[in-house]
Amino acid sequence: MDKPDIEGRLEQLGLVLPAKLTTPTEVRLPFKMVRVRGNIAYVSGHGPQHEDGSTAGPFGKVGADISLEQAYDAAKSTALSILASIKRELGTLDNVYWLKALGMVNAAPGFNQTPAVINGFSDLILELYGAEQGGHARSAIGVAELPFDIPVEIEAMVEVL
Amino acid sequence: MDKPDIEGRLEQLGLVLPAKLTTPTEVRLPFKMVRVRGNIAYVSGHGPQHEDGSTAGPFGKVGADISLEQAYDAAKSTALSILASIKRELGTLDNVYWLKALGMVNAAPGFNQTPAVINGFSDLILELYGAEQGGHARSAIGVAELPFDIPVEIEAMVEVL
Amino acid sequence: MDKPDIEGRLEQLGLVLPAKLTTPTEVRLPFKMVRVRGNIAYVSGHGPQHEDGSTAGPFGKVGADISLEQAYDAAKSTALSILASIKRELGTLDNVYWLKALGMVNAAPGFNQTPAVINGFSDLILELYGAEQGGHARSAIGVAELPFDIPVEIEAMVEVL
Repeated sequence: MDKPDIEGRLEQLGLVLPAKLTTPTEVRLPFKMVRVRGNIAYVSGHGPQHEDGSTAGPFGKVGADISLEQAYDAAKSTALSILASIKRELGTLDNVYWLKALGMVNAAPGFNQTPAVINGFSDLILELYGAEQGGHARSAIGVAELPFDIPVEIEAMVEVL
Repeated sequence: MDKPDIEGRLEQLGLVLPAKLTTPTEVRLPFKMVRVRGNIAYVSGHGPQHEDGSTAGPFGKVGADISLEQAYDAAKSTALSILASIKRELGTLDNVYWLKALGMVNAAPGFNQTPAVINGFSDLILELYGAEQGGHARSAIGVAELPFDIPVEIEAMVEVL
Repeated sequence: MDKPDIEGRLEQLGLVLPAKLTTPTEVRLPFKMVRVRGNIAYVSGHGPQHEDGSTAGPFGKVGADISLEQAYDAAKSTALSILASIKRELGTLDNVYWLKALGMVNAAPGFNQTPAVINGFSDLILELYGAEQGGHARSAIGVAELPFDIPVEIEAMVEVL
């Protein structure tokens, strides 16, 4: 399997990885964004971020405050946040084989098109990595609340090649 | 450890594995129902299915629209959906050693008997595989929304023997 | 890496591990609190427990019935429940390398300080194990309902050294 040039592909797509997550000073996040052990990297729950690393919206409930289209874009943005954390941890994006993702949508009551939201993540990962290296198991659920009222949070497991 | 004849046991129990999941044409599910890497299979979130592969109900909130007993049966049906996906991916059900499951219940406000619901999954897996091969770690939680308003969704990790 | 004396540290902190989980007789939990396979231990969803093993409160919704401070303490108590289960399964707490945790908060509508709640777990694990052995990936989400109306449930994966 040829390793892809993921950062080259991101550039072609006009996509930029955000800086390391910044949060208000009163917020403590005492865990690792990516925990690597052996050949597995455990990726913490991420949300959308601005390029400067700050938490990005739109904030609120998908299906009420936020449209499906906006939520799809937020899931795509969350993929970029995850890729940025992996890059910081591993030094490259090319040696990653996707295993699984858990996609959590900040759902308004009655909004159950959660798979269509998390497709924003899956579509980008598959576009970047292709079906073999980028394929992944997935769940896409609606949760009651997410930190900072972000619309989407995604955690993942990947193999380090 | 003798490998069990899981399909024989299913037949004895009068249980039938559903066909591959079918969804309305506007629904895209761009991920793998089972992602195998090394000796671990990552199983995507599954719900109950009819024998023809279509998504099965009863649809709605457990504890309001749906009784505990119906939800238990839906979790058992979800186990069959998972087994069917594993069979399609691995070609057999016998070489599976269960590791963990995350059971998610589409809970009405105030319904917290989520373990009793997900027991529908665990009981069947244990009946089929026995305590050693079928034993698994588990969480059983109530979530805000599930895709297509299914009553139960379960994801899992198994070892491929 | 020197292995820590975790039980000695717990004693220094005045913390006691609870007995094995006990539940009302009508409640069946047909799964393993810790499933070990190879060098990975999969830890089922745990909640706070009294020293006698019974499920502990405060019961209800964090942000309404339960304060952030109480919920933080419940997450810390949940860490003790998890450690007690690991001790029963492995015979020691010293050979554990933390990988990931999924923290689920029984959130009242509008309560989204879920990371600050799950910090009760992370802070204790890091205090006991240090940054290298105790570091972990994490998600902290608000769910709709939890079993027995407990305020916090946490599941985890650890490596057995």
